[in-house]
Amino acid sequence: MNGTGGEAGAVPGQITTPPLHPAIAPLSYLLGTWRGEGEGGFPTINSFKYGEELSFSHSGKPVISYSQKTWKLASGEPMHAESGYWRPKPDGSIEVVIAQSTGLVEVQKGTFDAGKKVVTLHSELVGNASKVFKLTIVEYNNWKIL
Amino acid sequence: MNGTGGEAGAVPGQITTPPLHPAIAPLSYLLGTWRGEGEGGFPTINSFKYGEELSFSHSGKPVISYSQKTWKLASGEPMHAESGYWRPKPDGSIEVVIAQSTGLVEVQKGTFDAGKKVVTLHSELVGNASKVFKLTIVEYNNWKIL
Repeated sequence: MNGTGGEAGAVPGQITTPPLHPAIAPLSYLLGTWRGEGEGGFPTINSFKYGEELSFSHSGKPVISYSQKTWKLASGEPMHAESGYWRPKPDGSIEVVIAQSTGLVEVQKGTFDAGKKVVTLHSELVGNASKVFKLTIVEYNNWKIL
Repeated sequence: MNGTGGEAGAVPGQITTPPLHPAIAPLSYLLGTWRGEGEGGFPTINSFKYGEELSFSHSGKPVISYSQKTWKLASGEPMHAESGYWRPKPDGSIEVVIAQSTGLVEVQKGTFDAGKKVVTLHSELVGNASKVFKLTIVEYNNWKIL
């Protein structure tokens, strides 16, 4: 890596929005920034309210860039963060690769229904940096615009 | 996911820079945006010059957020992108988790030398979303500020 600063020409995607790649058009309703809030709790701790922000963007390629973060609503203290890429396929299947601030990587696979605006994902691979082993779990997530 | 917009309070880290967590202080020289350029080529294609940008940031937690992208210098066309987290430990070891736009996840481990500003990483796990299997490769990268 050689950091020099400003010698690499124009950075794409920062001046004009590139055209949408056809592969991601069925999920274009996700593009932008989404915010919400929730409440977390476990038997051994006080429950807490948190804020959550998800961002989906693209650079003209057949992949959607994804990032997410949560924070405690009361204090603004940052909590979890993750980022990665959503790769929809013409056959209605989708792959999602994610790195998490806690030291996990995850591969999710599933399907999407553009008409119903539902994406169904399950975890195919979780890699844990701290524990050096790989485990495969199955966990279903339904993402639906409400 | 319930996207409502603007109901989740102030977003941390966007108004003031949070204090640096002591765990990431030895790598604070990385924080910011680095740009450079290089030349890529294979026997079967014309060689091309590319621009590359790496960004390192933090939110006050013991982890550094990382993102990278490359683009063709001549056209500005985006090429590869990846993002993830660097997790330095007090003992001089470091874990890096990365998601790649090509559908790969990767766990890298290694060591850092704050005095020499050298981070040495090797790949411990590569997960490929498209091929559904996991492979473990060993590949050494030396990151050094030149």
